[in-house]
Amino acid sequence: MTEQLVIALDAMGGDHAPDMVVGGAALACARFPGLNFLLYGDSAQLGRLVARHAVLAGRVEIRHTDEIVRSDDKPSTALRGARKSSMRLAINAVHDGEAGAAVSAGNTGALMAMAKFVLKTLPGIDRPAIITAVPTMRGMCCLLDLGANVQCSAENLVQFAVMGEVFARTVLGVQKPTVGLINIGIEEIKGNEAVREAAAVLRESSLPLEFKGFIEGDDVAAGTVDVAVTDGFTGNVALKMAEGTAKLITSFLREAYRSNWRARLGYLLSRPALAKLRERADPRRYNGAIFVGLNGIVVKSHGSTDALGFSNAIGVAVNMATNGFIPKIRQDFERLRSEMQAPDQTPVA
Amino acid sequence: MTEQLVIALDAMGGDHAPDMVVGGAALACARFPGLNFLLYGDSAQLGRLVARHAVLAGRVEIRHTDEIVRSDDKPSTALRGARKSSMRLAINAVHDGEAGAAVSAGNTGALMAMAKFVLKTLPGIDRPAIITAVPTMRGMCCLLDLGANVQCSAENLVQFAVMGEVFARTVLGVQKPTVGLINIGIEEIKGNEAVREAAAVLRESSLPLEFKGFIEGDDVAAGTVDVAVTDGFTGNVALKMAEGTAKLITSFLREAYRSNWRARLGYLLSRPALAKLRERADPRRYNGAIFVGLNGIVVKSHGSTDALGFSNAIGVAVNMATNGFIPKIRQDFERLRSEMQAPDQTPVA
Repeated sequence: MTEQLVIALDAMGGDHAPDMVVGGAALACARFPGLNFLLYGDSAQLGRLVARHAVLAGRVEIRHTDEIVRSDDKPSTALRGARKSSMRLAINAVHDGEAGAAVSAGNTGALMAMAKFVLKTLPGIDRPAIITAVPTMRGMCCLLDLGANVQCSAENLVQFAVMGEVFARTVLGVQKPTVGLINIGIEEIKGNEAVREAAAVLRESSLPLEFKGFIEGDDVAAGTVDVAVTDGFTGNVALKMAEGTAKLITSFLREAYRSNWRARLGYLLSRPALAKLRERADPRRYNGAIFVGLNGIVVKSHGSTDALGFSNAIGVAVNMATNGFIPKIRQDFERLRSEMQAPDQTPVA
Repeated sequence: MTEQLVIALDAMGGDHAPDMVVGGAALACARFPGLNFLLYGDSAQLGRLVARHAVLAGRVEIRHTDEIVRSDDKPSTALRGARKSSMRLAINAVHDGEAGAAVSAGNTGALMAMAKFVLKTLPGIDRPAIITAVPTMRGMCCLLDLGANVQCSAENLVQFAVMGEVFARTVLGVQKPTVGLINIGIEEIKGNEAVREAAAVLRESSLPLEFKGFIEGDDVAAGTVDVAVTDGFTGNVALKMAEGTAKLITSFLREAYRSNWRARLGYLLSRPALAKLRERADPRRYNGAIFVGLNGIVVKSHGSTDALGFSNAIGVAVNMATNGFIPKIRQDFERLRSEMQAPDQTPVA
């Protein structure tokens, strides 16, 4: 990244805000030379925090607001009520063209409701989705939807596939991302109507998208595909189930190491190697549930993250903005729309 | 278990059948003194295998059949065609009262179709479900449905909750099992209509069932509840996602240990403690997807399991048969049905 880019930050969202937001901004500034921030929140607090980080000097504009979206606010309440909140103002900055992306660690539902209302979906996209990248045996897999849509039609799933593919190309830099549709078996007759229909559309589509057909839950960690598509209910539950399993095994491992002196000594010797493993599986590395399908970039950081995790969420926003995520999505959906309007015709070259 | 119990085994189902089936039967015989088997399959092969295990002498009756359900047979084909298959005959033995339960490591779809057709569902139960127990921070959690029902109504979910609770009491020996309904958030407004309605029914029910409301995917491994209820699509994907994650972490761990001599030495020292961890997380310990809701006990073992894993699947069948799983389910559903018929009346003591 060489050009200038402004990111709007909701400085008051998240369990450890605003400290970790400002800390994360400082870490990101060190990583991306052309990066600048609009910081929304309590100016007195933010002023003191910004002053602690030399790297932020001249790269941050603080914009004061008293209003905050709380983590237990209903999305509808936040949308109607919190129009001057740090979260809303950060999204407005994207809409108004002042910022190339917004990042918040606040209330996910409120952030999605506001982002949808302010930015609207891109042409051809019915519903935005939440996407993230998870570690696999072969690298990373982009998984969506993670909870924006409880029920999904075949059209929604097809749109998610296209958005996921663009995400893998733009943010992860995968040359020709492969896409799979999550099902409870890989045979064509399996699953509900929506997944079967979506698979049929994706198989026949002339989109530049390498569709691998149905995959199962364990294919995500196996790295069978670069993009795994499912409805928001299944995706949310499955991702949290995976997170819970990872925590469980780590806890079993910790107990095993503590069980006797021999195991403790073994742990001390293996520690440097295990630290690398921990880094590899560190959820902060993959921090950021990204809203895709909107006419603007909004990244949701984990609410409980620290400065390092928040800087990674900023990193995702930077990658999306500088690699042209929105124009690429636009382009693919224009193509998809023109195909859908002429479904019975052989595509003309 | 002191009384006599006969279990019917599909000796030809599974990747390593019939060896691991006979081996599993031998291990189970050593564990349960009153146990006997009906073994369905190729009598020549089975005769040779049985002769190798002294513990099986006089406790096994071999019943010959040539017919086998293949792992890629469609459920409908197997149901219509394979009427003399080892799988079908084992289920028939349960129906005819010759066996207290059937165990198979064969084709899951075919097994479910045959079991449903032959045994039928219990009164008050619309659809059978697949349940299993997974390890958690606090012990075990019974998770259902794992793929028998792609789409589920509120009634289905309520029935799964009742069946899961009886399973936790009968098989896991939990005194007062707690039950949670999987959702994408714990607030009452979250989720689709089916989960919201099911939660409302379970909250108001006077069933002896401790309903804890909504839980999220990570609550399963955290051990928040003894029984986690969801639809078969979500349950299947989530369980496989968890299995994939467990494999991924194990593989990362293996790589970490191999990365240098120091880590290798540390591994050697920690090995006994790590072996205990492996045992704790060994999928063979939790082997067996159990069909619940049918008028008879049928346990599906993992297709790729070995003798130890198969013996554990037999163990689950033994626990269900000897602890009165079916009569207890019957009793709870009679109560549920009488409540449902008079939904607006205060229950009379």
